[in-house]
Amino acid sequence: MWNCQYSDENFCICAEDIDTGGDASPSTSMLSEVARSREITIVGGSIPEHCCGQLYNSCCIFGSDGLLMAKHRKVHLFDIDVPGDITFRESDTLTAGEKPTIVDTDVGRIGIGICHDIRFPELAMLYEARGAHLICYPGAFNMSTGQLLWELIQRARAADNQLFVATCSLACDVDASYVAWGHSTLVGPFGEIIAKAGYQEITLIAEIDYYLIQLRRTNLPLEKQRRGDLYKLVDLERLDTQQGPLR
Amino acid sequence: MWNCQYSDENFCICAEDIDTGGDASPSTSMLSEVARSREITIVGGSIPEHCCGQLYNSCCIFGSDGLLMAKHRKVHLFDIDVPGDITFRESDTLTAGEKPTIVDTDVGRIGIGICHDIRFPELAMLYEARGAHLICYPGAFNMSTGQLLWELIQRARAADNQLFVATCSLACDVDASYVAWGHSTLVGPFGEIIAKAGYQEITLIAEIDYYLIQLRRTNLPLEKQRRGDLYKLVDLERLDTQQGPLR
Repeated sequence: MWNCQYSDENFCICAEDIDTGGDASPSTSMLSEVARSREITIVGGSIPEHCCGQLYNSCCIFGSDGLLMAKHRKVHLFDIDVPGDITFRESDTLTAGEKPTIVDTDVGRIGIGICHDIRFPELAMLYEARGAHLICYPGAFNMSTGQLLWELIQRARAADNQLFVATCSLACDVDASYVAWGHSTLVGPFGEIIAKAGYQEITLIAEIDYYLIQLRRTNLPLEKQRRGDLYKLVDLERLDTQQGPLR
Repeated sequence: MWNCQYSDENFCICAEDIDTGGDASPSTSMLSEVARSREITIVGGSIPEHCCGQLYNSCCIFGSDGLLMAKHRKVHLFDIDVPGDITFRESDTLTAGEKPTIVDTDVGRIGIGICHDIRFPELAMLYEARGAHLICYPGAFNMSTGQLLWELIQRARAADNQLFVATCSLACDVDASYVAWGHSTLVGPFGEIIAKAGYQEITLIAEIDYYLIQLRRTNLPLEKQRRGDLYKLVDLERLDTQQGPLR
C-alpha cells in the first residue's frame, strides 16, 4: 500500500472512500487526474479502502480518459506466522475481495492481483483462461520471503500461463515497520525477466510485445496439451454468469 | 528415457513389455532386483513401453520387496516446434497415459510425473490435494529450455504446493541426438534447493525431512487461504470413483 505504512493501525487511519471519490479519496483522485492529463492507463498500486464499515486492500485501474475502469479488492488475505521472523494477520482488520478482476484497457486485457494473490496459481490460470495478456500484481513481499520467492513466483505465473506479469513493489526502507523487498519486475511469456528494479526507488520503462504470447503458444501449445479429461479448473464466477469464453 | 537415446526410432526399438516383465522387460527386472536386494524404494526413471500395440513413456516404482507398486505413463506428451531451435512431436509415436499416479511407499506418498508433465500446474496441485509428500519427475529438459525453465518450474511446483519435488535427468551428452540439460534437483516446500547436480553424471544423496511440510503449512496455510468460492480444481478421476479425501 503506497499511501500509508503497512500496519493494521495505518489501514484504518489512511483508508479512503474510493466509491465516493473526490475529496473522500485523494489518492485515487490524483491517479485519475494523472491518467487523464497524460492520456495513459494506470494500474494504481493499492491503498486501504473503507466501504460499508469494512476495510479492503484495493487497487484501482484508470483509463486514459481518467475514468475508473475497475477496482480490485485483494482476494487472498495475507496471514503468516513464522515465529521469530514474521507474524502478520491481514484478516484481523481487512475483508477479502469478492471476485477476480480483469479489465480491457488501451494496453491490453489485464488481470489484477495484489501481493499475496500471486501465491495462488489458480487466480493466474483463471486470468489466462479469460484471455489476459498481462497480469499486474502490486505487492510488497518482505525481506524474509522476497529473496526466495518473489522472482520465482512471478516467473512461474508468466511461464506457466504464457503471458506477461508485471509487479510493482514499494522500495526497501529499512526504517519502516514492515521492510519491503522491492524489486518490481516485468516478466515475459517465456519466464524471462525483461526489466527489474533493485531495492531502491526507481522508474522502470520497458516495452511489452504481445506478439511474444502468440509466438510462445504456437511453439509450445500448453493450452491444447492440457488434460481436460483428468483435471479441470472451474471458474465459479463465469459458471454463475454463464458467460461464454471471452477469447 | 534411460534405456535408449531419445528419438522416435529408438522408442520402437527399445520399448519393453513391462506388464509381462521378466525377459520381456530387462530394465524393470533389473530395477526390481536392485530394490529387493538393497531393500530400497526405487522410482525408476522412464523407459519406452509397448503394450497392446501402443507405445508409452513409462516410469515404474518398486517397493523394498522388489514388487512393482505403480507404473506411470506420461500423461502430457511433449510437442514443441521452435523453428531453427527444436522440433519434437512425441504424439507422433507415443500414446498418452490414462491417469495421474500416486503411490504410498515406505518413504512417503509419492506423485509421479514424467518430464513435460511438470509444466502443468494442475497435475502437481492434484497430487497435493491427494496428500503427496513428494512429487518425482524423471525428465530431460533440453539445452534450449533447461537453463530458463527446469529449475524454475521445479521450485514453483514445490513452493506453490508446499511439498518436496525431486527430479532426475540423464546427464548432458553433447554427442547425443537429443542433448539433455541434466541438473537433477531436490527442492523443499519453501521452494529452496536442497541438492542439485550439474551437467555431469553424479550420485546425489540428500535427506528429506517431511516435518518441513507441516511446518511450512502451519506458518503459511495456503490450502486454507484458497478461495474455493471463486475457483476450484476438479480431480476428475476422484470424482468418477467417488473417493473421499485421502488425507
